Amino acid sequence: MKKSIAIDMDNVIVDIETNWINWYEREFGVKIDKKELLGIPEDDAFPDPVAARSLIYKTGFFRNAPIIDGAQEALLKLQENFDIFIVSAAMEFPNSLPEKYDWLNEHFPFISWKNIVFCGDKRIIDTDYLIDDHLKNLDFCKGTPILFTASHNVNVTKHKRVNNWEEALALLEAEN
Amino acid sequence: MKKSIAIDMDNVIVDIETNWINWYEREFGVKIDKKELLGIPEDDAFPDPVAARSLIYKTGFFRNAPIIDGAQEALLKLQENFDIFIVSAAMEFPNSLPEKYDWLNEHFPFISWKNIVFCGDKRIIDTDYLIDDHLKNLDFCKGTPILFTASHNVNVTKHKRVNNWEEALALLEAEN
Repeated sequence: MKKSIAIDMDNVIVDIETNWINWYEREFGVKIDKKELLGIPEDDAFPDPVAARSLIYKTGFFRNAPIIDGAQEALLKLQENFDIFIVSAAMEFPNSLPEKYDWLNEHFPFISWKNIVFCGDKRIIDTDYLIDDHLKNLDFCKGTPILFTASHNVNVTKHKRVNNWEEALALLEAEN
Repeated sequence: MKKSIAIDMDNVIVDIETNWINWYEREFGVKIDKKELLGIPEDDAFPDPVAARSLIYKTGFFRNAPIIDGAQEALLKLQENFDIFIVSAAMEFPNSLPEKYDWLNEHFPFISWKNIVFCGDKRIIDTDYLIDDHLKNLDFCKGTPILFTASHNVNVTKHKRVNNWEEALALLEAEN
């Protein structure tokens, strides 16, 4: 039987950081340099965190986000040897549910609806690996946690880290 | 730590059978007796299965479905001693995602978004119990399967069966 991998969306296959920076500039006229986000919790990384958070609830925020470099090619390759599941804690933002579904359909048409999970707490997800940018998910997962680098987690020293999809692919192909 | 229970939506807390019968009558003018559904796969239970299936994609089909008798009271009671997760294979019908979320918010406001899972295949869900009406979910679940009676599964002889929420509550409270 193939080993299974749960793959988070935001900051792992969806470039939500760039998206957030773009929306913040467009809505509030302030351009944030990505370097300013380093090591800071996502909510606090913008000059006005409440305004930044309000963007998450806007129509189109999730639907039009760019893709993380190399994610498409990596998942296509990994799918040859692993069962790939997209597991997003989308339930916190119910407006994101159809947008995230449509986004996946556009960018990852080779992922079946059977392999998509929108949840809240990821503790009940049981896969051999979890690739995620948040300790709140990685610390409690049932399989092997893999930390995917995002600005907010650069100072985290727990868990095996991958900085991009090239590294993730190399790590997982070596495990197979 | 509390034991966890994954609870399916359609035919377990949502009376999708009654809903389907009502919609079929309203849209096609044919009233089906519930007895005609006994032991027949859901898709084949109506005179025109294709027409019946088309109803699933209509706006409001999931949002306005009635609740299964006793589900609210039972879940409120079970929540005292168990971690309750609502786990619905909603991903097959993406139009249902926001409707199912809103339905849960209306009828089960005491279930946190953290405890809601919309997925495709339930194999990666790891809870101590799964209450479901479908063998495709129960046969592969990681915990103890509990078959909740629906018309289509009356002839199934596998798994522990409960006929209603009164029986489910009695069974689970005895396990605690």
